[in-house]
Amino acid sequence: MSKVIAVNAGSSSLKFKIYEVPSENVVASGQFDRIGIGNSNISIKYGEGQKFEDVKDIDTHEIAIETLLDQLNALNIITSYDEISGTGHRVVAGGEIFKESALLDEEAIQNIEKLAEFAPLHNGPEARAIRAFQKVLPGKPAVGVFDTSFHTTMPETAYLYSIPMEYYEEFGARRYGAHGTSHQYVANRAAELMGKPIEDLKIITCHLGNGGSITAVDGGKSVDTSMGFTPLAGITMGTRSGDIDASLVQFLMKKLNIDDIDEMISILNNKSGLLGLSGVSSDMRDVEDAADKGDARSNTTLEIFYDRVRKYIGQYIAVMGGVDAVVFTAGIGENSGRTRAAIIDEHMSFFGMEIDDAANDTRDEAKISSEDSKVAIFTIPTDEELVIVRDTVRLGNINE
Amino acid sequence: MSKVIAVNAGSSSLKFKIYEVPSENVVASGQFDRIGIGNSNISIKYGEGQKFEDVKDIDTHEIAIETLLDQLNALNIITSYDEISGTGHRVVAGGEIFKESALLDEEAIQNIEKLAEFAPLHNGPEARAIRAFQKVLPGKPAVGVFDTSFHTTMPETAYLYSIPMEYYEEFGARRYGAHGTSHQYVANRAAELMGKPIEDLKIITCHLGNGGSITAVDGGKSVDTSMGFTPLAGITMGTRSGDIDASLVQFLMKKLNIDDIDEMISILNNKSGLLGLSGVSSDMRDVEDAADKGDARSNTTLEIFYDRVRKYIGQYIAVMGGVDAVVFTAGIGENSGRTRAAIIDEHMSFFGMEIDDAANDTRDEAKISSEDSKVAIFTIPTDEELVIVRDTVRLGNINE
Repeated sequence: MSKVIAVNAGSSSLKFKIYEVPSENVVASGQFDRIGIGNSNISIKYGEGQKFEDVKDIDTHEIAIETLLDQLNALNIITSYDEISGTGHRVVAGGEIFKESALLDEEAIQNIEKLAEFAPLHNGPEARAIRAFQKVLPGKPAVGVFDTSFHTTMPETAYLYSIPMEYYEEFGARRYGAHGTSHQYVANRAAELMGKPIEDLKIITCHLGNGGSITAVDGGKSVDTSMGFTPLAGITMGTRSGDIDASLVQFLMKKLNIDDIDEMISILNNKSGLLGLSGVSSDMRDVEDAADKGDARSNTTLEIFYDRVRKYIGQYIAVMGGVDAVVFTAGIGENSGRTRAAIIDEHMSFFGMEIDDAANDTRDEAKISSEDSKVAIFTIPTDEELVIVRDTVRLGNINE
Repeated sequence: MSKVIAVNAGSSSLKFKIYEVPSENVVASGQFDRIGIGNSNISIKYGEGQKFEDVKDIDTHEIAIETLLDQLNALNIITSYDEISGTGHRVVAGGEIFKESALLDEEAIQNIEKLAEFAPLHNGPEARAIRAFQKVLPGKPAVGVFDTSFHTTMPETAYLYSIPMEYYEEFGARRYGAHGTSHQYVANRAAELMGKPIEDLKIITCHLGNGGSITAVDGGKSVDTSMGFTPLAGITMGTRSGDIDASLVQFLMKKLNIDDIDEMISILNNKSGLLGLSGVSSDMRDVEDAADKGDARSNTTLEIFYDRVRKYIGQYIAVMGGVDAVVFTAGIGENSGRTRAAIIDEHMSFFGMEIDDAANDTRDEAKISSEDSKVAIFTIPTDEELVIVRDTVRLGNINE
């Protein structure tokens, strides 16, 4: 049976998930890290909970891919490279060029490379991974699925910042958002669960993972989203600050004797958020544990996280002039009923939202609002890789 | 009769408004500009629409104050310096020190100077003005009224940013807000107009001037506000960007070949907002005119302004878990019924808000919501100087 690989490449990493199509069964998943650094950890999960692990030097993404395919062969997951019918690639920045997923020809790959200035850590490596797969699997379709595509329907009111207009016109300085694939998937799934056409629904999707973003989905289209020009903006995240006063950049550079703006922004990306506030961890579970053991800073950290999500829910109700459903997804959104209940607390009853505590005690797809709730509230596990594979099958004309 | 001067000093300017107490009649108002620069414009309004104007070199704030008092004498507004019973000073940054207005002794003035790093263009000049008045009017009470005091009731959930906690603990990097005097005044006035104790009300106050901020006033206390560490953050303003992705600072510095963070932040403070978006003007009236003449950019600018205010109203409903009243004030909020109606449009009917178009056609204090509106909506002219004078009379023990 034909197989499709969903790929997510970083500068020194390669994550993959391999699906059989059309059955959409996952046959393997895993990752390579430390590519080009030495002592790469290789990890492949397959079968019924089986796992292959190895450590060796992997110099390039191309070698990683050859190593992967050979190992899939050795593990009898595939019998030849030919079984791979196509590759789907998560691309962070699609700018204003990629309004939807795209079959990737040379021009498209060059466009992904051009857009690297909007996602320096992601687009370049992904483009290199695309080229590597094309070399190892010549003639097989590669499809790009962009984190930003779903948000290209935002009106200019939402995507323009109140900065000189020429910065948008000349440099593309605007809100792009991210996690589009996830927001799109869970919004559509919520409409299915409600048995209503998505065109008739106002849905607020809360993708709460290590990165997090909230999106206003009106009639199936993204009309506003909390991440901005980059994923730094919006709610409190694992290590990202989310929204701050830009003057803090100036103030903190002076206080910390930092001359390099990159260093300052790196602190906001990598040392802030839950980690910076709590001083404990970027992982919500660790912060919850610390708070439960009486750590006041961790407790404050949780309250700030809830507050920021509530504020985005409130503002997107104003943007859409109403709300029919709220959806939680991603690592925290799917797994922390505590977080969902703390966000949809008594503050939100003004909006007609109420959680059913028993229904909320789940990690699976579920409607978690009470019977009295005027707004349907769901937890829906996201599946970005499945969307990537479906788009790859569709755009790559993969038939079997 | 005794008189009190409300003073607002900038680095090269001095604005004043002189009240008779206890009648609270305004006997004169005006300003000096270009202090220390040469060719200062002096302007004093008094009596029944009379105006005194002059141009001369004014080297220091002290000379400006002497010139002012002499001129008040010449115009028969006062007969001697002794008639001035006290001075009240608007101070932008009160930090965490000044939780309310304060009678200013040497220690307090030094604290105002220490807080200058939070408001470099304001606190230093105001401290110099305070010292100058004390020299010219020895023994007369000087009272500081702080833009930030009203917001010192914010919970840490609202005032902490999601950045490393030590930046707050060591440097005071947090949300302080501004326009507190105005938010406090109009919130209390709204409660009076509603005939209800402010302790029982949830009020959202929209101070929309050249600078603008929105505040959530729960039970009479500020619980959140849109301006942040500095007045740069929040809604779209005349020349300030309001909220942006901090990564834009990094991106634009590279694109614009700017090495100096101060230069970049200055663009966000002085060349952004309505001015930067429209390319026409920082003045809402000019942008409205241009939009009416068919300028698409100006129309987009207006829509963005409305959107940002609506979003803050929505998020503060989430913060307070409800809303009883919305108040508009300051230059735009008081004078542009068009802006008020555009903000409280059909998007806001989900919150039970509805404007009465006839009632909204006013520049005076008025309830402008319809009979069916579940939320009371007001336009209330703000009067920060009156609050300053009242606090000066109270704290300065001025009896006659």
